[in-house]
Amino acid sequence: MGKNLTQKILSSHLVSGDLNNGNEIAIRIDQTLTQDATGTMAYLQFEAMNLSRVQTECSVSYIDHNTLQSGFENADDHAFLQSAAARFGAYFSRPGNGICHQVHLERFAKPGKTLLGSDSHTPTAGGMGMLAMGAGGLDVAVAMGGGAFYLPTPKVLRVWLTGQLSQWVSAKDIILEILRTLTVKGGVGKIIEYAGPGVQTLTVPERSTITNMGAELGATSSIFPSDEQTQRFLEAQGRGEDYVPLAADSDAVYDEEIKIDLSLLVPLIAQPHSPDNVVPVSELSSTAVQQVAIGSCTNSSYQDLMRVSQILKGKRVHPNVSLVISPGSRQVLSMLASNGSLTDLLDSGARLLESTCGPCIGMGQSPVSKGVSVRTFNRNFLGRSGTQDASVFLASPEVAAACALTGFITDPRTLEQSTMVEFPKQFRIDDSMILPPGDPDTPIRRGPNIQPLPIAPALNDSLDLPVILKLGNNITTDDIMPAGSKILPLRSNIPAIAEFVFHKIDPDFASKAKAQKQSIIVAGHNYGQGSSREHAALAPMYLGLRVVLAQSFARIHRANLINFGILPLTFVDEKDLDCLNPGMVLHITDLRQAIQTPEPFAITVDNASNPIMVKHDLTERQAKILLAGGLLNSTKQSV
Amino acid sequence: MGKNLTQKILSSHLVSGDLNNGNEIAIRIDQTLTQDATGTMAYLQFEAMNLSRVQTECSVSYIDHNTLQSGFENADDHAFLQSAAARFGAYFSRPGNGICHQVHLERFAKPGKTLLGSDSHTPTAGGMGMLAMGAGGLDVAVAMGGGAFYLPTPKVLRVWLTGQLSQWVSAKDIILEILRTLTVKGGVGKIIEYAGPGVQTLTVPERSTITNMGAELGATSSIFPSDEQTQRFLEAQGRGEDYVPLAADSDAVYDEEIKIDLSLLVPLIAQPHSPDNVVPVSELSSTAVQQVAIGSCTNSSYQDLMRVSQILKGKRVHPNVSLVISPGSRQVLSMLASNGSLTDLLDSGARLLESTCGPCIGMGQSPVSKGVSVRTFNRNFLGRSGTQDASVFLASPEVAAACALTGFITDPRTLEQSTMVEFPKQFRIDDSMILPPGDPDTPIRRGPNIQPLPIAPALNDSLDLPVILKLGNNITTDDIMPAGSKILPLRSNIPAIAEFVFHKIDPDFASKAKAQKQSIIVAGHNYGQGSSREHAALAPMYLGLRVVLAQSFARIHRANLINFGILPLTFVDEKDLDCLNPGMVLHITDLRQAIQTPEPFAITVDNASNPIMVKHDLTERQAKILLAGGLLNSTKQSV
Repeated sequence: MGKNLTQKILSSHLVSGDLNNGNEIAIRIDQTLTQDATGTMAYLQFEAMNLSRVQTECSVSYIDHNTLQSGFENADDHAFLQSAAARFGAYFSRPGNGICHQVHLERFAKPGKTLLGSDSHTPTAGGMGMLAMGAGGLDVAVAMGGGAFYLPTPKVLRVWLTGQLSQWVSAKDIILEILRTLTVKGGVGKIIEYAGPGVQTLTVPERSTITNMGAELGATSSIFPSDEQTQRFLEAQGRGEDYVPLAADSDAVYDEEIKIDLSLLVPLIAQPHSPDNVVPVSELSSTAVQQVAIGSCTNSSYQDLMRVSQILKGKRVHPNVSLVISPGSRQVLSMLASNGSLTDLLDSGARLLESTCGPCIGMGQSPVSKGVSVRTFNRNFLGRSGTQDASVFLASPEVAAACALTGFITDPRTLEQSTMVEFPKQFRIDDSMILPPGDPDTPIRRGPNIQPLPIAPALNDSLDLPVILKLGNNITTDDIMPAGSKILPLRSNIPAIAEFVFHKIDPDFASKAKAQKQSIIVAGHNYGQGSSREHAALAPMYLGLRVVLAQSFARIHRANLINFGILPLTFVDEKDLDCLNPGMVLHITDLRQAIQTPEPFAITVDNASNPIMVKHDLTERQAKILLAGGLLNSTKQSV
Repeated sequence: MGKNLTQKILSSHLVSGDLNNGNEIAIRIDQTLTQDATGTMAYLQFEAMNLSRVQTECSVSYIDHNTLQSGFENADDHAFLQSAAARFGAYFSRPGNGICHQVHLERFAKPGKTLLGSDSHTPTAGGMGMLAMGAGGLDVAVAMGGGAFYLPTPKVLRVWLTGQLSQWVSAKDIILEILRTLTVKGGVGKIIEYAGPGVQTLTVPERSTITNMGAELGATSSIFPSDEQTQRFLEAQGRGEDYVPLAADSDAVYDEEIKIDLSLLVPLIAQPHSPDNVVPVSELSSTAVQQVAIGSCTNSSYQDLMRVSQILKGKRVHPNVSLVISPGSRQVLSMLASNGSLTDLLDSGARLLESTCGPCIGMGQSPVSKGVSVRTFNRNFLGRSGTQDASVFLASPEVAAACALTGFITDPRTLEQSTMVEFPKQFRIDDSMILPPGDPDTPIRRGPNIQPLPIAPALNDSLDLPVILKLGNNITTDDIMPAGSKILPLRSNIPAIAEFVFHKIDPDFASKAKAQKQSIIVAGHNYGQGSSREHAALAPMYLGLRVVLAQSFARIHRANLINFGILPLTFVDEKDLDCLNPGMVLHITDLRQAIQTPEPFAITVDNASNPIMVKHDLTERQAKILLAGGLLNSTKQSV
């Protein structure tokens, strides 16, 4: 029986487990990436494991999140990361060099290899035929040390593409259509594999827009085959030697399949406040727009911005619209500057921001109160823009540019201009802002924002835990550990950042949790979706959270909870959530035994006649981690 | 007897008073400018005066301070200002269009005219032969309404320039030399007039670097003659018709004079934490540098950045240095983009920021802890960069670029390259981001960050005031009302921003002041130097500050205190400051009478045997303002 693409890469990297029985497997990681908001922790954890140099083929530490630098914290983090990369043998991409996923695609990603990144949009490199996954910083630190990455054997969903996109319809519309179909839960536990005759019509940057937003489906990863388009991109990046062809066998088997005829797609837009709330752009055409933001790891490639510049050339941004553009990388920016397109953008009235994540992570450019912002980004969660009552819409660069011109949500098919962007034969290559690995004796720079790692306690055998918060479905890691320009700079300082846990839901959460010493929270389905940030586990752990009892979990966050010694439990009967409320105290006994056996077990509830039955679904490895009090403790024990 | 340049412009604009007796005069204002950090208040005040359209020849509302937009506040302020400019008949320079002083110089400034701006660096336009002064927003609001601007007749100090600058010595070094000589108090009460054969060797942007930093001397303004250089600049800006020649009469008389031979100057640098702490760059050559910041209203002209790009071309920024560049305006940026120099800058590893004030006002790019930052800016007050323990040095673009290459403070005369920048025959002109005055029926947009103006009470006849703070010399408006990225966004919300008054000196100041209801602070010389921000008067007034008793005051801040109903008093014997301490209560009686007579009067001090004698130096007009409880009250009474 033939293999699909996922099975080929997994089996060539398999360290332990069996791909056929659905259980946990462990794979070898070829490359890692970190960014500065998660990287400080990853490198502190790497250091705490007493390892000297990274053991991967290539590890890259990027600075792209905290680049506004409103206070000493960001610059301190950058200095720490630069010194740590030099000392531990990683590449360091300087602030201003670009967004990690865009730069990694341009300069490092290789077909057939595995990439683990401490950022949920790491699957961007799946557009290159790479198996690229997001994980917590601690998993990445372990991988940097040569350790395997553990994951449940994913199901594989094939997306069969036929036909060709019409003018004004682009890669973003493909992934928005899939989000509309599958919803933000549709990819959980799955790798999404693209195949079919439509694949060859899509360039690598277009493919990467699609694999990037696979994260919004909750997918483990998304991947395209490596083919002539891949070769063309690599050769234009001066990396032709990195090309290998790679595709599923023709008789490969898949767990699920959906089919999309590209020629039938129309320009789409995701409405507030979820990336799957998708409708045709034409349905919203009377909506006034106050801001348009173009950029992010989803849609800021050379081709994306060239199309924008062609739409805007010789025209003016509407006076009621603030148009901000963040090129994906210094390569993109310098190509726009040298071919004159940057001048066209500036002449139209665009504001040029640094080549960073920027407004996508709420790092500046918060919209006006009650404003409508159309963005080429990947997430539109409530409040993520920094303006709580703003309405953020997600769309393609073409739609965004059309909105900027008219001041209303606008179907670009109504524009007079057309665009024609040639794929560059040769990208402008200059790696001078990527510092190579340095001297192992480089001293680590540790400013006052670099605080020691808190370590979880070993799991207690019996716990009496007050419920301090009850939550609904689809709680995001943004809800748990908000980002934004005031909080992100504290990522390397857990005592300080912990004050903001659940801040938007319950501003007193931190003080309540600390007062209780130990606690549990209960929640609905898909708890912990969204960004991979391990701070959403680490900071609650610091506040005393010991157990999360939910109807279901998002994959990366569940792994992060385990890594930081917080036990993730699910209900045997999910209706039991209805009976639980804040203030109740839950009693768990014989817990160390319970998590080492697969059977459900009982939790008694104060003042309730019946106990509730829960299950843990932990692998033997995960149980061992929890018994030790988290992955760092267990890794140290095993060294 | 001939007139100097200052006398010529003052007399052609005189509304009341006599230039010859040293008393207060009133002059007509031809143009005004505001920026967003002070402009929201100015336009709220204009609105509170119930006026319909601005009465000046030209009023421009710029957005250049709060452009990071970390939260809804900035965008709300921008929307308010855009709608207010349209309604009240002002031009509106959109965010991204550039720094107010640079854009004003390029597009609006005219020789022989008067300009009042709610920003202390408004004298930048003095490089154009314009009498340009900084003032509080309320003074600017009054001027927008056609009201006169009142000031004590300034003394005139002539700076006689001979010779010509050597290679690698530039306009910044001239003003640093003057700061070294005169100190930050040296210009108080004076207008600094440049003359002599050296003048013709300096272009308008170079002259404006010098007049810009006249603010750091405490000068009322600085001014150059209007000559062939002025004509050349205006013609290259497509505004040849705005040119008029203007110079002092050959037999003009001056109050003071200093002489500078330009050919003797060397590259200079101001050390932390004052712009007058100036030494030759060569004395500091072993100091390692972590950041270089190029930009600001002082040094971000086309010529400045062209020289930087020529120095950096083909070279790489030192790996330990973060180089950030903020072009002064969209004109500058687009000229760099279209002639290829932007590519040279990006290739060297520079980070490109928006064309705004940016790091100069602590709006991002705070240096690393204990870091050394070399900046082409105008102020290096402690903590203004956002990093309390950073060391900020001020120097020319040439020195900054040299430091960026070597990683150390570097005299550019040690560089191998040379630079040669032609003055452009034609600047790239595109005013599409300057919106013309709009419809008088435009509705004002008022988001939740736009809060009503607090109004001062009328002056009480007797006051019992606890001393809540005792301060030394040279207290800046940054000390009184800090700026920075967390506080600046609250400029249109006095109750919120008042919490930060004196925050760096006494974090409990706001709560102490509010608890006391009414209070006094005592201080040394030059109280209120630095930025013109009226919030340094308005927010303390809101907290109950009624009197400031100091050894001397900076001009703009003293006027702001009066405008907001706070009485500025000075000591008859300045040694009396030594006897006053926090906790003492001062008793003032018959105050309304006392401020209407010129004589000193007594203040009794609890537990002290002798009263202390104080004086007010108020004009009749100022006394009337204070009796009414500030300028807004008094203007309303007179309407």
